[in-house]
Amino acid sequence: MEPFSLVEMQQATRNRGMPLEGLRYDITPSGIHYLLVHFDIPTVDESTWRVEVTGEVQRELSLSLKDLRKRPARTLPVTLECAGNGRSRMPHRVESQPWLLEAIGTAEWTGTPLAGVLEDAGVKPDAAELVFTGADRGVQGGIEQDYQRSLTVEDAMRPEVLLAWAMNGRALEPQHGAPLRLLVPGWYGMTSVKWLGRIEAVTEPFAGYQQADAYRIQKSEEDLGERVTRIRVRALMVPPGIPEFPSGHRFVEAGAVPLTGRAWCGTAPVEHVEMGVDDRWEAAELGPELGPFAWRSWSWTWQAEPGNYTLCCRATDADGNQQPLEPFWNVQGMANNYVQTVPVTVR
Amino acid sequence: MEPFSLVEMQQATRNRGMPLEGLRYDITPSGIHYLLVHFDIPTVDESTWRVEVTGEVQRELSLSLKDLRKRPARTLPVTLECAGNGRSRMPHRVESQPWLLEAIGTAEWTGTPLAGVLEDAGVKPDAAELVFTGADRGVQGGIEQDYQRSLTVEDAMRPEVLLAWAMNGRALEPQHGAPLRLLVPGWYGMTSVKWLGRIEAVTEPFAGYQQADAYRIQKSEEDLGERVTRIRVRALMVPPGIPEFPSGHRFVEAGAVPLTGRAWCGTAPVEHVEMGVDDRWEAAELGPELGPFAWRSWSWTWQAEPGNYTLCCRATDADGNQQPLEPFWNVQGMANNYVQTVPVTVR
Repeated sequence: MEPFSLVEMQQATRNRGMPLEGLRYDITPSGIHYLLVHFDIPTVDESTWRVEVTGEVQRELSLSLKDLRKRPARTLPVTLECAGNGRSRMPHRVESQPWLLEAIGTAEWTGTPLAGVLEDAGVKPDAAELVFTGADRGVQGGIEQDYQRSLTVEDAMRPEVLLAWAMNGRALEPQHGAPLRLLVPGWYGMTSVKWLGRIEAVTEPFAGYQQADAYRIQKSEEDLGERVTRIRVRALMVPPGIPEFPSGHRFVEAGAVPLTGRAWCGTAPVEHVEMGVDDRWEAAELGPELGPFAWRSWSWTWQAEPGNYTLCCRATDADGNQQPLEPFWNVQGMANNYVQTVPVTVR
Repeated sequence: MEPFSLVEMQQATRNRGMPLEGLRYDITPSGIHYLLVHFDIPTVDESTWRVEVTGEVQRELSLSLKDLRKRPARTLPVTLECAGNGRSRMPHRVESQPWLLEAIGTAEWTGTPLAGVLEDAGVKPDAAELVFTGADRGVQGGIEQDYQRSLTVEDAMRPEVLLAWAMNGRALEPQHGAPLRLLVPGWYGMTSVKWLGRIEAVTEPFAGYQQADAYRIQKSEEDLGERVTRIRVRALMVPPGIPEFPSGHRFVEAGAVPLTGRAWCGTAPVEHVEMGVDDRWEAAELGPELGPFAWRSWSWTWQAEPGNYTLCCRATDADGNQQPLEPFWNVQGMANNYVQTVPVTVR
């Protein structure tokens, strides 16, 4: 693997992945949920903060957190994953947040369905998309910008899309978007705009930087590429045994080794998970479902004999999509769901 | 700077620093407090968990969390910093957790003074040290080990040393040592053993790996070195303006730019802080004290004119110790408190 630059390390020391032993929890403790702050965590005064609903609507709205809390609330367990998860496991990667595999987490998010707010505003028939603006501001691609992303009206109206003010039963902390964030279950995390201040209905597809330039699956610099949208199928395991510091190499006692992990997919339910030991694959057992937008546990017992092995796990969704055994290369290093490999020594 | 290895990046994506804009908060939101997990976050069953007090004591104790919560409780704001903070800013650094500057945070920790527990146990006069054992286990330097550190009886009996069960008013999350951790204000973080299961009074200085081999300030591989103990004086600033992604370069508007940050020291109070603009230093103003073991805010206003600049800040403690302008090199990359530099473009 190519070494990492200072720019990559500066991103890695301020953002964070979930230590993979965290896969043992159904609901990720808030403090180890993955976190990507695109620009800076902004200063937001919650006492004066409002979210504006503007543009192609019958009635413009300006809602305080108190207004939103009076609306119907839903709590959903949702697995979020960064679109760049797996980026560093590609050859010739772009300089960005250098995720290996840990940009994941599952929280219980509480908020009010966006659809109800949009119905109250009365989105006009000629509106094509909703543009969501966060309070974090910076420069990217030579353009000074607030962080902005859009959804089609159809996607925005789905019942699971929330304006969320709580995570794991507590008010959002600043780094997760306090006081309010968009939460779009099933989609990669860049869609769930934090520090949400404005929702604007527009008649043309949004062409802002984070939509038209970033978060695209490009085969070459010249390729316009496809939009990154829903989360591709993936399984990860809890690395078994104990780690060596700092290498992270794992040591396991011989005998029956229970292996567990989680699998998730934003496009179709996870249908099966396989565990591979040195390329011999066997079916793992799926655990109970937590919900349609959350990861699912799986387990498999390995009869381990002394020696060195490489463990892998691989998920397949109900549409037949299976994780690749090789990196899925693209310019921006997006959506790379190739299988995890864990080298272990059995003693 | 030398590029970073995969081993370093594996540590960086599972551990995390505090994004430096987090310096704006007196008390760090729990979810952005720095975190170093030496081995793995262990599985601890809180319902059966106990801390054992053993060895050279009159009465061995076995205390549940319920027992501890019946004891006198103290809440203290404490700034913790990893001993390896600044490691990556050294030339020829060792392969370890590759901190730049962000391995800091200040939380309100609640627990019961260790001294009272030790008094109840009756530490015998021939005891020299207390050895603290956590539940995280791994291999380092070829030795399989539980994470263990010691303190002299005198240091352990200080009134600010806590057995802590809460952080920022809530039960500890697993990654911060649930259900109980040691908390040693003023000392680098390796001292505050997490997932604490045993306290043993011993007659000889503890020679375990994390005491005798790791966490030492060695001038060469052959040098036995000095122990890392208390936190050296340091100031950090909130990087002003807005960032460029992914470089992190800052853009600032010309005019009066309020600069703020925090300064702290584990050996003596912070006496003054200076801000440097291209090597011209001026005194910053210190804010109110949060407490004897917590960082102190400071501020200074920069009259910024268009151009490119390097901003620095530097703290001095009441003993006259001042942060160095060059890295303080040592084999393990410990306690490197050399000044932060922030390149900015004023527009």
